Amino acid sequence: MDLKILWPGKTRDPALRTLQSEYLDKIARLGKCRVIETREARGVSEKDPGRILDIEAAGLEKHLQGEHLVCLTDRGDMMTSRQFAGFLEKTSLGQPYPITFAVGGFLGLADRLLKRAGTRMSLSKMTFSHELTRIVLLEQIYRALSILKGLHYAK
Amino acid sequence: MDLKILWPGKTRDPALRTLQSEYLDKIARLGKCRVIETREARGVSEKDPGRILDIEAAGLEKHLQGEHLVCLTDRGDMMTSRQFAGFLEKTSLGQPYPITFAVGGFLGLADRLLKRAGTRMSLSKMTFSHELTRIVLLEQIYRALSILKGLHYAK
Repeated sequence: MDLKILWPGKTRDPALRTLQSEYLDKIARLGKCRVIETREARGVSEKDPGRILDIEAAGLEKHLQGEHLVCLTDRGDMMTSRQFAGFLEKTSLGQPYPITFAVGGFLGLADRLLKRAGTRMSLSKMTFSHELTRIVLLEQIYRALSILKGLHYAK
Repeated sequence: MDLKILWPGKTRDPALRTLQSEYLDKIARLGKCRVIETREARGVSEKDPGRILDIEAAGLEKHLQGEHLVCLTDRGDMMTSRQFAGFLEKTSLGQPYPITFAVGGFLGLADRLLKRAGTRMSLSKMTFSHELTRIVLLEQIYRALSILKGLHYAK
């Protein structure tokens, strides 16, 4: 399994950053997964959300090739953890590129990225902060790889 | 708003414990919310899940009175964050007791608690570790109270 995760900027909350490293370490034992922190729209007024989304989309697009893109969005489909594991297994078959996840900043992702996505995915009906979303995604990737390897990973 | 959250034992992961304190501090500025760490079934073999659930249910029940009990379970209803805020507002009206949440240990909650619940709630179709569930619940409570106070709390 070869996975790539893109999100704008570093995770700022220190505890969430610690969790991020912990999950990436656990995931590394089961598969290949790297996080790329793309360009953040710093110093742009929040009154201009279109511009923030545009700058961040350009930063994310730099790292896209012909891969299967999974965009995380409130308007995406929900899966159970087992369905997500099955999705990763199926989607990675015969792929020359890693499956690539894009997680937006505090405004989410630009429409043009959502349109480009092979899969639009939602982690919950609830809205999570964008930094917590990163952690929940990593936990689900770890859980999915554990399921695929037949490992016991408790609730 | 007066909320009480029950779960068995301390949160072991240090980063999740830090997040827990951070969210509880933020929530404290908006309403009353306390966490009670109830009795854990320590030293009981995982081969006897019924006994673990039974011991932990007894620990949780000690802290229940006539309140509206919300049990977190995979088999619960999902809400959006706005619906959850509305639910808290409506359910707290004229209540002499705090709304009480019960979050299970790694095996979840005993059936007898689920039957007693006024509300069975699920945070996601996906399965989260029981310690991550605690954090997601706290983040949603903070988000809900922010929504009810008309505060801006970004994604």
